[in-house]
Formats: sequence, structure tokens, C-alpha cells
Amino acid sequence: MGKSKAAGGQKENEGKKQNEPQKKQQNDGGKKQTKLGLECSKDVDYSAWYSDVIQKAEMIEYYPISGCYVLRPWSYAIWEFIQQFFDREIKKLGVKNCYFPMFVSKSVLEKEKTHIADFAPEVAWVTRAGESELAEPIAIRPTSETVMYPSFAKWIKSHRDLPIKLNQWCNVVRWEFKHPTPFLRTREFLWQEGHTAYHVKEDAEAEVFKICDLYAAVYTDLLAIPVIKGRKSEKEKFAGGDFTTTVEAYVPVNGRGIQGATSHHLGRNFSKMFDISYEDPINAGEKCLAWQNSWGLSTRTIGAVVMIHGDDNGLVLPPRVASVQVIVIPVGITAKTSDEVRTELYSKAKELSVALLNVEIRAEEDSRDHYTAGWKFNHWELKGVPIRLEFGPKDLANNQAVAVIRHSGEKRTVSLNGINDTIKTMLDEIHDAMYKKIEKCRDENMITCTNWSEFTPALDQKKIILSPFCGEPACEDRIKNDSTRDEPAGAGVSAMGAKTLCIPLQQPSQELPKQCIHPKCENVSKFFALFGRSY
Amino acid sequence: MGKSKAAGGQKENEGKKQNEPQKKQQNDGGKKQTKLGLECSKDVDYSAWYSDVIQKAEMIEYYPISGCYVLRPWSYAIWEFIQQFFDREIKKLGVKNCYFPMFVSKSVLEKEKTHIADFAPEVAWVTRAGESELAEPIAIRPTSETVMYPSFAKWIKSHRDLPIKLNQWCNVVRWEFKHPTPFLRTREFLWQEGHTAYHVKEDAEAEVFKICDLYAAVYTDLLAIPVIKGRKSEKEKFAGGDFTTTVEAYVPVNGRGIQGATSHHLGRNFSKMFDISYEDPINAGEKCLAWQNSWGLSTRTIGAVVMIHGDDNGLVLPPRVASVQVIVIPVGITAKTSDEVRTELYSKAKELSVALLNVEIRAEEDSRDHYTAGWKFNHWELKGVPIRLEFGPKDLANNQAVAVIRHSGEKRTVSLNGINDTIKTMLDEIHDAMYKKIEKCRDENMITCTNWSEFTPALDQKKIILSPFCGEPACEDRIKNDSTRDEPAGAGVSAMGAKTLCIPLQQPSQELPKQCIHPKCENVSKFFALFGRSY
Repeated sequence: MGKSKAAGGQKENEGKKQNEPQKKQQNDGGKKQTKLGLECSKDVDYSAWYSDVIQKAEMIEYYPISGCYVLRPWSYAIWEFIQQFFDREIKKLGVKNCYFPMFVSKSVLEKEKTHIADFAPEVAWVTRAGESELAEPIAIRPTSETVMYPSFAKWIKSHRDLPIKLNQWCNVVRWEFKHPTPFLRTREFLWQEGHTAYHVKEDAEAEVFKICDLYAAVYTDLLAIPVIKGRKSEKEKFAGGDFTTTVEAYVPVNGRGIQGATSHHLGRNFSKMFDISYEDPINAGEKCLAWQNSWGLSTRTIGAVVMIHGDDNGLVLPPRVASVQVIVIPVGITAKTSDEVRTELYSKAKELSVALLNVEIRAEEDSRDHYTAGWKFNHWELKGVPIRLEFGPKDLANNQAVAVIRHSGEKRTVSLNGINDTIKTMLDEIHDAMYKKIEKCRDENMITCTNWSEFTPALDQKKIILSPFCGEPACEDRIKNDSTRDEPAGAGVSAMGAKTLCIPLQQPSQELPKQCIHPKCENVSKFFALFGRSY
Repeated sequence: MGKSKAAGGQKENEGKKQNEPQKKQQNDGGKKQTKLGLECSKDVDYSAWYSDVIQKAEMIEYYPISGCYVLRPWSYAIWEFIQQFFDREIKKLGVKNCYFPMFVSKSVLEKEKTHIADFAPEVAWVTRAGESELAEPIAIRPTSETVMYPSFAKWIKSHRDLPIKLNQWCNVVRWEFKHPTPFLRTREFLWQEGHTAYHVKEDAEAEVFKICDLYAAVYTDLLAIPVIKGRKSEKEKFAGGDFTTTVEAYVPVNGRGIQGATSHHLGRNFSKMFDISYEDPINAGEKCLAWQNSWGLSTRTIGAVVMIHGDDNGLVLPPRVASVQVIVIPVGITAKTSDEVRTELYSKAKELSVALLNVEIRAEEDSRDHYTAGWKFNHWELKGVPIRLEFGPKDLANNQAVAVIRHSGEKRTVSLNGINDTIKTMLDEIHDAMYKKIEKCRDENMITCTNWSEFTPALDQKKIILSPFCGEPACEDRIKNDSTRDEPAGAGVSAMGAKTLCIPLQQPSQELPKQCIHPKCENVSKFFALFGRSY
């Protein structure tokens, strides 16, 4: 997104710029100048807004191969913060990192039938190397169960070899033919995939939930996004597994649910197919099969951040994953400003950002001479930096600066005494406020519905819906079908039918009606499921 | 390598085991029992030794697809330590991480002709997704110059957009048809690739050498391997670049050189082909092309560690990349040992390893009841742990333990008072001693040769050779040809011809003869080049 760097961009909020006359250098380059701000409003044309913001905030560069995108440093840094956190946490659980090949042969890939049925249509095949046709086509991993488990079978010869807890950070390929969306539906994406094997079923199951908690923590503690923990329905669970847990977030702009990450208990399905077996330590001569889990979190997380927190001024970064948390911008520099004052302002900006860096606040100063302060304000707002710290000659004289908070637009005059602590506290406050804002919105839009006639209208009102559900895949198909609209009920609303986002671990306190939400269902309802239109 | 975990393994050095009677539990499992130690000596059958050590030390698991290997946690951890170090260092230089797609279209891949000529025979092609043939085959990156530079062209619109300094940690695929070797020649491998663009040529060139220094630091400061910094010859440089710098290590066992990592100045070759251009800031209306670099370090580093430091007892890990630096093993437990003493020993082992962990020494205790101390000694030696800390009841009574140093076999009685500091110092000592041992060996085997008749015999004596060289590719071809043997001159020696490892940055102090080393060469020699048989 080099274009947004070109000078001269303007946006609606011109007020800021009036105090900051444009400098001569601003017209440097003579290049075509593009509007710095976003072309469209999030509420008016959500999809155009998304595409615009990820490019102008320098997160994504489009790429000539459909479904593939460049993750630029501004978005990749979010992934690095997530990696650091999650990697540290799983290492505390005794998980070790490793790397398995990305290629897998056809015969091994197809060993677990239910599993491959789900992935087969999206598998990318290598058939040629240089000028030579390969004897057998080789698949690129869509996920690594089948890549890893033949090795597990070799390694596990006794119950003493268990548990095995492995993880890898890697790319995977799912050649989807649906319309791709950066971060959310891409043909290649980055993720971590954990694969573990246990002797005791309960230990394996406990891990599934522990990992689900860690995934929730990624969202709540890093990304400032509330999530609902739950199990996936039979229809939506991981193919080949026993059950799937998930964290689900709510996207206010269109009322859709988005799956945050999933942690699966595979039972003994794969260990049976791959013969991950060993002698029973209690009944000599009998064979045990290992209990297995797999769990994954992907760069889709970054898309959730954009969708859920972004606004009409651009990206809004949660402080804990912002590669720049504080941008320091000297202001009030005009053509009449003396060199002495200018130098003082710039060196103070440097001094402030260094001081913040020294207490591990990711600060940067923008002392570029060829952009106006107004241009810089817009630029860093677009990029979503949580705090802008601006100060002019008068502020300096008063030993103060103005902190402008990205997500709320609030301005606070802050003393330069104790500025480090002030900012540190403010970043935590911002995190909490961003979280609470989304949580409030989510809670207002999560309703309980026991009457089918209210179900689809609620979807149209961007609700996610807790309804009694029998859990049967056929019934879920019917619910989806019968809640699909021919046309969207309104702007920004999808026509798609509802699916279960999850069966929340924490069920509503009200009594479960016997009747499943679909009026034609003859089964007894088993739980409240959370339904919604979904990514 | 689950097999090496089975009980009952024995090795040559039985002495250790005699004091440690086998316990009943040792025969647990009733599985086939495999020899724990290595099957062959490094000097006798180097290649069998290598394959054996990487499997038994649990670094590698073989994989059904030729040229692909599983990096198990024991080897992957080395890569993680290298990543941590190098990532931190390049971030200090302002390099930012990102992620580009691994797929590239044929037309873009083939844009720089010299470059693609080198890689084309090894490119893996995806031609099918699910059941659909792709309209155009898509290549998997062998390296990412052609993947990245179209984006560079979009981003760089002014000299103010420079420098751009990007890096990615990723997998690449080079479908070589030569015999594969784990870590050293694999069809998929992991690496980092840095790609930068500058306005000023000198800045770009300075970075090439700065990165080369960091690569040298990875070897010397982390891996305890001495390297020679140099430039690659015209024949050996990166295809499409202007010049290549390299760090080269010496492998004592077979006298071969191994390229450690390379840092390339691409000049304007790629910026010309991809039109990475912008207006000249001085001569308005004129066009500038960016000066570019690329540089890469791969998991080959791990192979160098195995080859260079390993011995007949297994792997020898340099302390700074060992995931376990100290293994604490209680000894002297026999069938007659009271439960009280046994418990005391185990709890002391735990206490010691926790105390070491608290001062950031990576320690672990091996209190497994079903293995003898002797088995554990062999196991952790095979895995190359730098220090074994053993103690029995008598040691405890004397408030002491015995530290056994893996690389030298030396035993030191150490007081438990101040043990943390003692071990910390010892780890640094071990690093230095391992480095110096290899350096001494390398220096003894690096000779200057100005007489062609001595050249090939020196190769047969496992030397690397500094010789005057004209630098011409044709002459290098001739040298390689004429130093190739029909058969190896002896066991453990290769028959292959010599190539230039590098043109050392630090040239020998002696005067450069005018005559190039090849007697038929009619050019004047330009420098001393370092020749050797090479990986």
C-alpha cells in the first residue's frame, strides 16, 4: 500500500488540519495522489470497507494468485504477539514444538475416511517437479493428522511413551472455491496445530478444554474480543473426531458469528486407523489405543480484529497486539517556527518515545518533516495505533502533552511527569474499554428464542440466537434451509441460513423447553445451541 | 525414535553400568529391545553414523516421501534458539517480519532469467486442486525474490519509501534429485529469507556484510562452530545477484567445507526486471532503480552441529542451543536402597533442577524409576546434553555432585553450594572449549597451496586449501574437473572435485603469486580462494 504514503491525502475530519499548514515538502514526488482516508463507511458497504482498510492500513497486499495474500508487517506483527503468548502457554503445559513435512502421499492422506471426505475437495496436489512428472501425485497438508500419526505409531510402544504433546507453527493449504477473503478464507494460511496422544481418556479430554481456555484467552486478553466457549454440533464438529470445542465471537457490523479457534478430541478414531497402539499396562497381552487431540488457531484471528474493532477512520488495534502502541507526534510547527523550537520538539519526541520503549511500551515518534501533523494524525488513525501523543511548543512549556485515544476519540491532557506510568495504565484501560464495548454489543444482540416464527426475523436483526436444539445433523440442515432468505432482509445483512455456532458450555439459566426450535422436529431438545449466520 | 526408549539398551562403555544393577522394572513392556548406542563409529562409516545419530538422538524421523524428514522437538529446539537470536538481531536493524504466499505463477517466477535458470529444474508444481485441473500450474517457492518483488514495485513510489527491510520465516521447496540427506539436502526445508531495498548502493552493500556478520555470530556464538567469512566466486554466487557473501565451516571428519548461510547483494538486476523504480530525488524526471539484497539461513545449521560436534557416543550439543543443558541424575540406588534415601535423592534432583531453571539454566531431572542410571547416562549422552549432574547418597552427605562434561568426558566434583554459578560458568567454558577444539582442527587442516601437484593430494588428506585464483568460472570448472578422483583416495574421503568455498574477506598475509593455481590458466590470479570438497 505505497499509495497511502503519498502526500496530500485528506479525510472528512478537516478540523485537525487547519492548524497545520501544509509544508512545501509535502508535494514531493509528483506522484498521483490518492485519498488517505477510507472510501466507504463500515455500515454502508461493509465488504468494500474491509478490503479498503486492510490495504490502506498496510496489513494486506493483494496477490495475483486468487485466495493468496501478502501479510505485511503491520498485520504479521499481530500474529507474532499471538504466537509469543500461545507458545509460552503451551510450553508450560509440556507441549514441544516440531516440524513435519508439508507433503503427504495420497494413500496416507486418505486413511481416515470421514476425515478425508471433508478435506478432499480442497486438497492441492503437486504432480510435477522441474520437467519430471511425479510417479504419484503428492498432497499439500490441509491439516497434519495424517502427516503426523504414522510417526506417532512408531514412537508409542509403551504407555510410558505417553503423553506425547507436539505443536507446529506452519502454513496449510485448502484450495477453497468459494469467494476468498483476506485472513478469513484464504487458500494458504498460517496456524499452529497441536497434536497430542494420551494413555488416559480423561487426561486427553481435560487438555481439550484447557486449550480451549487458552484460545479464549488469546481473544479476551490479547485481542479484546469476548468469546463464547462451547462444543460444536455433530454437523459442525471436526471430521474424524469425537467432539470439537470452539470459541465463537460476534461481529457487530453484520451480526454474524465467527469461529475463533477449535480444539478437538479425536477419541481413538485416528489411533485405530494408524495403529497407535501399545500393550495394556494392566492387562498383559491386551492392546491399548491412544486417546488423541488436535487443536488449531490461525491467522483468521487477525481478520476478527479488523472486523470487530475497526471503524470508519480505519483500523483500531487492541493495545496488546499493536506493534506501535503509542505514536508520538510533535505539532504546532509552522513555516514561522524557529529552527530552535523545531529541533526542541523533535528531540523531545525522540526522548519520549525512547523513555516509553525503555519501560516496554512500543512507542515510535513520527518526526517526518515532509508530512503535516494532520496527515500524520490520519495516517496513524487509519493504522489503528491505540494512543497518539501530541504536543506543541505551548504543551512543552506546560510540561504536558495530549493523549488521543484511538478507539474512543477521547483527548486527555497528560503531564509529562510520570508519563510512562500514565501511558501504561491507559493502555490497559483501552484494552478493557474495547473489550467491554464489544461485550455489551454482543450481549445486547444475543437473544434466547424458543419460537420458530421469531427465529429468522431475529437473524435479520443481526442477532445470534440461543434456542433449544435436538442436536441432530438432519435437523440442523433443516434449520439452515428454512432460515435462508431468497434475498437479504436489509443492507448489511446476509441472506444465508443459520447454523449452530456452538453449544455453549455455560448454558442459559432458564429451563430447557422440550421442543427443539424447529417446529417439525420430533426429537426432544438436548441443550440450548447458539445459532447464527456465520463466517 | 521410540525404539531407543525401550529398556535394556547397552553400549560399549559397560563400566558405567556395573555400579548400577538393573532394576526389575527395566524389563517393562516386553518389546523388542534395540541397542541404545550407535551402531558404527563416526570415523569408520560416517554416513551410517550420521543417519544413526540423528534418529537415535530423536532429532529426525524418516518419512515416506523421499527428501522429506520430520524435525522432532530435539532438533527443532535448536532452530528455535537460532530464530530467537537472529530475529532479535535483525529487528535491531529495523527489519520487520512478514509473510508472502508460497505459491507463485509461472510467468512471475520466470521473470529474472539467470535466476530461474538455476532453480527451474527443482521447482515443484501444483497442477490440481481437489478434482479440478488448474488452468495454469502454480509453483511452490524455491526462494521468494520473484514472489516479493512485484509488491516491492507497488510499495516503492519515492526514495522516501526506502529502505524496505523485510524478513520471513518459512518453508521452501527445492525438489532436488541428488541423494537427499536430513538437514543438509532436503526437498522441503525451513529458513529465514530477508529481502531489502535501498536508495543508496553503499547502504545496501553495508547491510550485506552486516548480515554476514550476524550469520557468523550464529555459528560462532551459538553453535560453537568457527566460520570463514568470504565472497562466493562468480561460479558459485547467487543466480541473478551481483555478489554473494558466505560463512563457511570445516567438517573435520571428512575434510569437507559446508556453506553456513549466504547474504547476497542483488544490485539492480531484480529491480530492473520488476520495475522497482521511483523518481530520482536529485535529477527531477529521471528514474532510479532500487538496490536490493536478499539473505538466508536454513535448518542446514542443525546438520552442521551434528556433523561437526558429534562423536561415537552420539550427539554433542553446544550449550547455547541445547534444549536441556543439564540433566540431573540420582545414582547409587540399588535394590537395597531404603525408600527414605531413594525419596531424598529424587527430591534433591528435583530441587536442583528447579534451582537451575530459576537462574535460566535449562535443567531437567531424570528420576524415572524403570531405567538404570547407566541406561540414563547412555541415553543423555546420545542426545548430547552438555552436562550430566549425578549424585548418590555419599555425594549428598558431602554436599556435592559430579558434573560430567559431554564433549570431553571430563568429570568434576562440584560443591552444591553455589552450584548455579558453577554450572553457569561451566556452560560458557564448554562453549569456548568446543569452539576452540574445532577451530584448532580447522586451522591445522587449512593450508596454503600454490603448486597444483600438491592440490588434489591435499584434498585427499581432508584439507581445505587457500590457493591463488583468477576467479574465472571456466577455470573453476577445470579445477573441479581435474581434482576429481575416479575413486576416493581412502576411507571417509570423497572423490569429488574441489570448488571454491569462498574468497576469504581476510586474505592470507603472504604475497599473492601471479600464477593462478591451475597450471593451464593464463589469467593472472586475483586473490586467494579457499577451495575444498564441499556439501
